[in-house]
Amino acid sequence: MRAVVGIDLGGTLVRAGALDPEGQLLAWAETPIEAARGPAAGVQRITGLVHDILRQIGAVQLLGIGIGSTGPVDRQLGAIQNPHTLPTWENVDVVSPLQDHFGVPVTLENDADAAALGEYWRGAGGGLDRLVMVTVGTGIGAAFVYRGEIYRGVQGHHPETGHNVIDASGPPCYCGACGCWESLASGPAIARRAQEAVLEAATPTSLLARAGGDVTAIDARLVAEAAAGGDLLARQVIAESARYLALGLVNVIQFLLPQRIILGGGVMRSYELFRPVVESVITQHNVMAPTHLVEMRPALLGQQAGVVGAGYAVYQLLQGEK
Amino acid sequence: MRAVVGIDLGGTLVRAGALDPEGQLLAWAETPIEAARGPAAGVQRITGLVHDILRQIGAVQLLGIGIGSTGPVDRQLGAIQNPHTLPTWENVDVVSPLQDHFGVPVTLENDADAAALGEYWRGAGGGLDRLVMVTVGTGIGAAFVYRGEIYRGVQGHHPETGHNVIDASGPPCYCGACGCWESLASGPAIARRAQEAVLEAATPTSLLARAGGDVTAIDARLVAEAAAGGDLLARQVIAESARYLALGLVNVIQFLLPQRIILGGGVMRSYELFRPVVESVITQHNVMAPTHLVEMRPALLGQQAGVVGAGYAVYQLLQGEK
Repeated sequence: MRAVVGIDLGGTLVRAGALDPEGQLLAWAETPIEAARGPAAGVQRITGLVHDILRQIGAVQLLGIGIGSTGPVDRQLGAIQNPHTLPTWENVDVVSPLQDHFGVPVTLENDADAAALGEYWRGAGGGLDRLVMVTVGTGIGAAFVYRGEIYRGVQGHHPETGHNVIDASGPPCYCGACGCWESLASGPAIARRAQEAVLEAATPTSLLARAGGDVTAIDARLVAEAAAGGDLLARQVIAESARYLALGLVNVIQFLLPQRIILGGGVMRSYELFRPVVESVITQHNVMAPTHLVEMRPALLGQQAGVVGAGYAVYQLLQGEK
Repeated sequence: MRAVVGIDLGGTLVRAGALDPEGQLLAWAETPIEAARGPAAGVQRITGLVHDILRQIGAVQLLGIGIGSTGPVDRQLGAIQNPHTLPTWENVDVVSPLQDHFGVPVTLENDADAAALGEYWRGAGGGLDRLVMVTVGTGIGAAFVYRGEIYRGVQGHHPETGHNVIDASGPPCYCGACGCWESLASGPAIARRAQEAVLEAATPTSLLARAGGDVTAIDARLVAEAAAGGDLLARQVIAESARYLALGLVNVIQFLLPQRIILGGGVMRSYELFRPVVESVITQHNVMAPTHLVEMRPALLGQQAGVVGAGYAVYQLLQGEK
């Protein structure tokens, strides 16, 4: 029997799984990455995790290792360039040490691309030819899987769809734009909108009570819980945020017209609350492009998506090397 | 010697040219289409035009005929569905009559796609792998040429990039959106912005004088002429319009990150007036995506682009049939 190991390297945890050629998960392991202890310790920890997996699966031939890492990554150099969410990890070559240690090919993708490949292969993507995965959490990330491959731009760079401009009179973002998608529909954008609404409200709200009376403790998860519990202000905030989420999805459709859009990330666990407004806005734009042909689906693989997709990337590499 | 005939079917004129396999133009002919006389008369006129071309090039073997038509078109059915700019032309099969008459393969594309293929093959595209052509005129159209082929969406439909939303608080468009790219940066959008500015101006402007004192006669061409002549109000209108043009280009970059964007269409003949603001806005967004890697180039083929690209589409078909 043969398998690859997929690794999902996040800011907090590193997860790993073994996958057979059909994408069945054969083993799973995870551990804190403790990035601040430095890249050398981190690479050692990842190596240990792979050994852990190999012990679990026993007499299986290891074909390769795929890594999906919190970005930015340099795929050509196999290097992680991310001192933001992995403190001290700047220009860290993770590929060579694993390649040398295990003697197999190692690939590196950013985590959004890995998750999209995972959903394409074994999740909500169903192997469709034109697939966009949108991840809404602390930021908004998107990956376009075209004919089974991640679409990349000039010199292999990753498009930054989460920063497309949808409201030129909107708030400034660190990306240089005003009113980009992420600044209007990410988790922090929803939290900020709710905090402002609570401060402006004439009477105390149940949302504020959920936050223990501390406005700054209101985050997107609390807003969703309050909205689900019937809080009118929270529902208003969700409706407004859903409109911006939908306008970004309209732009995905106007540019890429995919067969399916997969919605993942923490904020999308409450997609049912957003759905009525999202569907209504998308229908309203169904004049020039056939927006009704584009299916919206929640992601299926959850926290396994990155591991599964990182494994798929290795199988793609091996396929290409044949 | 062998050649194809490319045809560009517009609302006013139908143009045709013969192209050898290297894309050299061997002959050219054009005639008014007079669409309102009906599709049968129109198809007869196109047939006559092809015969005209064949007479010009003499003893050349005709390999195929490519048509680029003012859209919408149904490529699968080979039918033009366009009573808007070709009055009475609804569900008109142009492919079969030409196929039967000349006994060669005939392809049908929409005109924006044909023009993009033309620039890719013989114009400003330089055969690059990731190319976007943006046409700014009465509307805004865009086509994405990826690895030498027009990118198409679900069920082969054409994405409507000209209608991506860039200012959610902008004016309503017939597409169902508020503040889409076309509603803010097309020729009519520039004209409307200028007309409003002239009406609000405290003193008469040179732009109004150019329009013979008739505000409603102000169009994008007059605005560009006045701006080039130093009219301050016209310059202000161009600057504001250039900002919206640039925000749409930023979104092209955030979604597709092409190697090059080609700017064509009537409004872009004055691109030099727009350039300073366009470049400044695009540079401002150079934080997440490497916008500086994306080249901006004016289109090179002008009114020949559609004919050349329609011819290229036939060569692509013949290549695929080998």
